[in-house]
Amino acid sequence: MAARKIRTIEEMGEFGLIDHLTSGFSTLQESTKLGVGDDAAVIDHGAYYQVITTDLLLEGIHFDLVYTPLKHLGYKAVVVNLSDIYAMNGAPRQVTISVGISDKFSVEALEELYEGVRLACERYRVDMVGGDTSASVTGLIISVTAIGTLRKEELTLRSGAKLHNLICVSGDLGAAFMGLKILEREKQLHAADPGFQPELKGYDYVLERFLKPEPRVDILLALKESGIIPKAMIDVSDGLSSDLLHICKASRCGCQIYDDRIPIADETRKVAGEFQMEPLVPALHGGEDYELIFTVPLSDFDRVSAIPGVHVVGNITEEKAGARLVTGEGRAIPLQAQGWNAFTRQG
Amino acid sequence: MAARKIRTIEEMGEFGLIDHLTSGFSTLQESTKLGVGDDAAVIDHGAYYQVITTDLLLEGIHFDLVYTPLKHLGYKAVVVNLSDIYAMNGAPRQVTISVGISDKFSVEALEELYEGVRLACERYRVDMVGGDTSASVTGLIISVTAIGTLRKEELTLRSGAKLHNLICVSGDLGAAFMGLKILEREKQLHAADPGFQPELKGYDYVLERFLKPEPRVDILLALKESGIIPKAMIDVSDGLSSDLLHICKASRCGCQIYDDRIPIADETRKVAGEFQMEPLVPALHGGEDYELIFTVPLSDFDRVSAIPGVHVVGNITEEKAGARLVTGEGRAIPLQAQGWNAFTRQG
Repeated sequence: MAARKIRTIEEMGEFGLIDHLTSGFSTLQESTKLGVGDDAAVIDHGAYYQVITTDLLLEGIHFDLVYTPLKHLGYKAVVVNLSDIYAMNGAPRQVTISVGISDKFSVEALEELYEGVRLACERYRVDMVGGDTSASVTGLIISVTAIGTLRKEELTLRSGAKLHNLICVSGDLGAAFMGLKILEREKQLHAADPGFQPELKGYDYVLERFLKPEPRVDILLALKESGIIPKAMIDVSDGLSSDLLHICKASRCGCQIYDDRIPIADETRKVAGEFQMEPLVPALHGGEDYELIFTVPLSDFDRVSAIPGVHVVGNITEEKAGARLVTGEGRAIPLQAQGWNAFTRQG
Repeated sequence: MAARKIRTIEEMGEFGLIDHLTSGFSTLQESTKLGVGDDAAVIDHGAYYQVITTDLLLEGIHFDLVYTPLKHLGYKAVVVNLSDIYAMNGAPRQVTISVGISDKFSVEALEELYEGVRLACERYRVDMVGGDTSASVTGLIISVTAIGTLRKEELTLRSGAKLHNLICVSGDLGAAFMGLKILEREKQLHAADPGFQPELKGYDYVLERFLKPEPRVDILLALKESGIIPKAMIDVSDGLSSDLLHICKASRCGCQIYDDRIPIADETRKVAGEFQMEPLVPALHGGEDYELIFTVPLSDFDRVSAIPGVHVVGNITEEKAGARLVTGEGRAIPLQAQGWNAFTRQG
């Protein structure tokens, strides 16, 4: 073999790396409808599809136990996986949860974690059917796999966006990131002065959005009641910008979104102000909001606009037009993926 | 709430801990046939069952990169999960693989790991359909979930053993543990004298059993050809003793096995001798052999004995008789779980 330049993982980025590592795999099983490359894999069971997704949550990368209550962490670990199932337009049914724990953990601490898992399972009516428990020489490790089902005609992939589709976003964006910023600020103040008492009052909204996100099953139900099947869908884990680019890449299209239509809560704007941050930045790049981004045909404009909590933020364009953010002054700026990146550990 | 004594995880042990943490969960989904407590969970798809299992492999706990080639590690990570699917009498179909990696990893190293995953998928005809890749602040983390299917009448649980059933073991036991001992010995010699060259020649069999185990799909095929459906089955991950006790507990029965019938390879005996170790010890307690332990009715004795590589090692007794090892001298010793325990990190 010819000598190759050793590439670093940072150079490739998470998505480049996954693409690269999985390129040599082919599928052999008839039942495999879709493998790597969407929010979940799709398995064909004849009368219906099953969707499967998995996530790894690591202490020091995805969460900080200094300010994350274990019950919230267990809840969130399940919920972020259910969000991927919903983003396929599926109904979650089962989860497995594996946990790696260091010696410092007490049984009581683990009970807290599993209580959060149990609450999430109960709320979203999914069964915890298995997992693995192991010692860890270092930090806490959580691996969750979620399984759901859906009627075949309801499957919504990232790749289904069509030219002139409307781009819709549920809820509001950027709040989870500002919640994280508050927690990080108070942690630093506490580290500098151990007598300092963290002040979290008044930040309830953004803190809850970060610590206890809820997947938007209510939006999926509203869409169903309105008779709308989205053409393409993804949940916001990395940020609107990064996740919308996933839709564009998979659907081979461009997009344009309008900065003044991107939904941002007043609380988020206020906290962004405290950090001298333009609110659009966490809304575009913050991630972990677990809202839904989806596209619908132009003809669904009236019906989709009538759903509370759904915002039309732009439209799908031709691939060659690229992905663009149009500002109030009419300038078009290229949309770039600057989402939360576990490999560079940007905020 | 009344004050409770804080219990440590070591006190409870892995299986006690899992029982304890999962006791508060109930199942709501009709399709959930079986949750926690066997080699895999069982999901009912009407015409057939689907089985799902997941395993967490952690650097410093389950593997040591000093002597584990990454390609072997990727292969083994898949294979140990497939072994759980086979132990339900299922045919594996899909796997997902999540990996957490530290900065020190090069893309080339990850390619090696995924090449092992790919080889295992190809050999056992399963599709890699998803996963997650993340940075890790410390060691390498691998989480694999495997999915299989089977005809309903073929489902083989740990709980199906019946009084007077024959207890059968495939292949031979204890080899993987002796392979690990060799690798640990050479590592220590190398640490004491960096100029020392590890000497692994002549140990191929036990090393291969540890580094590149193969699940016994061949035994399942032979059983099918003989028209035998096992009553209860488990794969040997923790050791014959510990895993047979799982069958006894789930089936509410006792067992007696005969020390002179436990299959041990000559190579294993030889290496055990080098360590002044009774070969029966790794055979009973070594683990990671990924052989099958299963029970069949007495009436299947002739047919099951005729299958190459299947050994009848004892029989199922009443629960009150307990689990016993009968020695050549006719003494009966209680069987105890002393398998590999990730919480106490016994070798």
